[in-house]
Amino acid sequence: MTKSTGKLYGLGIGPGDPELLTLKAYRILQSVPVIAYPAMENGKVLARSIVADYLRPEQIEIPMPLPFSPTRSSQPYYDIAAEKIAHYLSEGQDVAVLCEGDPFLFGSFMYLFNRLSGKFTTEVVPGISSTLASAAQLGAPLTYRNDVLSIMPATLSEEILRDRLAVADAAIIIKLGRHFSKVRDVLIELGLFERALYIERATMLNQRIVAIAQVEPAEVPYWALIVIPSQQKSVS
Amino acid sequence: MTKSTGKLYGLGIGPGDPELLTLKAYRILQSVPVIAYPAMENGKVLARSIVADYLRPEQIEIPMPLPFSPTRSSQPYYDIAAEKIAHYLSEGQDVAVLCEGDPFLFGSFMYLFNRLSGKFTTEVVPGISSTLASAAQLGAPLTYRNDVLSIMPATLSEEILRDRLAVADAAIIIKLGRHFSKVRDVLIELGLFERALYIERATMLNQRIVAIAQVEPAEVPYWALIVIPSQQKSVS
Repeated sequence: MTKSTGKLYGLGIGPGDPELLTLKAYRILQSVPVIAYPAMENGKVLARSIVADYLRPEQIEIPMPLPFSPTRSSQPYYDIAAEKIAHYLSEGQDVAVLCEGDPFLFGSFMYLFNRLSGKFTTEVVPGISSTLASAAQLGAPLTYRNDVLSIMPATLSEEILRDRLAVADAAIIIKLGRHFSKVRDVLIELGLFERALYIERATMLNQRIVAIAQVEPAEVPYWALIVIPSQQKSVS
Repeated sequence: MTKSTGKLYGLGIGPGDPELLTLKAYRILQSVPVIAYPAMENGKVLARSIVADYLRPEQIEIPMPLPFSPTRSSQPYYDIAAEKIAHYLSEGQDVAVLCEGDPFLFGSFMYLFNRLSGKFTTEVVPGISSTLASAAQLGAPLTYRNDVLSIMPATLSEEILRDRLAVADAAIIIKLGRHFSKVRDVLIELGLFERALYIERATMLNQRIVAIAQVEPAEVPYWALIVIPSQQKSVS
């Protein structure tokens, strides 16, 4: 790290509503000369669309082609993205990587962080996670004083989901997509289905809240999640 | 709910850095005629101090005396606070309740929400949780694709802490205070101590990061927490 290299920012930009950026993320976003963001194989550039109104035409943009679901074979994608970003940092330009939600909670930025933070000054700006934003939109207080909250992806096996949910006071199950039926069955088995709340694309313009019993499994998007709030409503 | 009543906001104001308010919380904070905030028995008015520079002199302020640790006996405190807030709402004035971190994650606002949201239009604005802010400050990516994150208070019994931590891929243990030694012993027993990271008052001016082995148990504040990041650093 020499003084002439740029600074890398992992910029949490929140769940979808552009007003849910922090004042800090907003300031950094407008001040950096270079921004980078995931451009998924399925054509989605969600992160950029969230902050589109805040960008300036003179900013350099690095769309990073990334596979939709990270696997071992996604390594080359992150290698290439890291190399592109390192190019600008080495030239002394600050680079902000846009991260939906929070950079360190299931974020693809972590793979870039692990490649670049040893070589360049790096700052991570936390963002509003879709998990907490969903609880807010659903009007569902999550955890009271002695509760444990577990946040887990729906991609887990039925067995692990069952084990983790059986002991959670409150839980949030993310990335539902085609895993909805599996999760629903586990919730019914554990007697949690009545408490479960469902939301799609929290805080985005096309947010949708529907009773979980009415959900059509074939139509559940990736950006859907289930919130199971704590039962301890009566305390205090 | 008639048109003439005011709107209640549960306003997440983040972990301490005033720049970690969202643009939305900032806008609402400046637009409402009435703000309310916890004034703890120990004299701390942390929430107000975070946003002090954003307040306007003409805003009405309602300091709410609340016990530091909610117990069954804290019910009367919340009853009184809810009554005060309801007074302004009934008069048609919007009231924003300041919530450190996120309103629905171990927040005292939940006790007001449960008392008032049935009677008045209520909106909860999510905030940056100290849990995610701490991971960002520590440079600790939390969870990769198939990980489960558990967030739990240090006030839990040794037995429950052991059971929950034994199966967590990543964990955050909050409200350490006088419970530090108990948590430390459990972490050592489970072989998690080497991975554990310690931080006090994340993002506040007096933030302190120290190697967990150097922590003096008698001096651990309430606003200290431990982050145990996932080990799956090598994936992708």
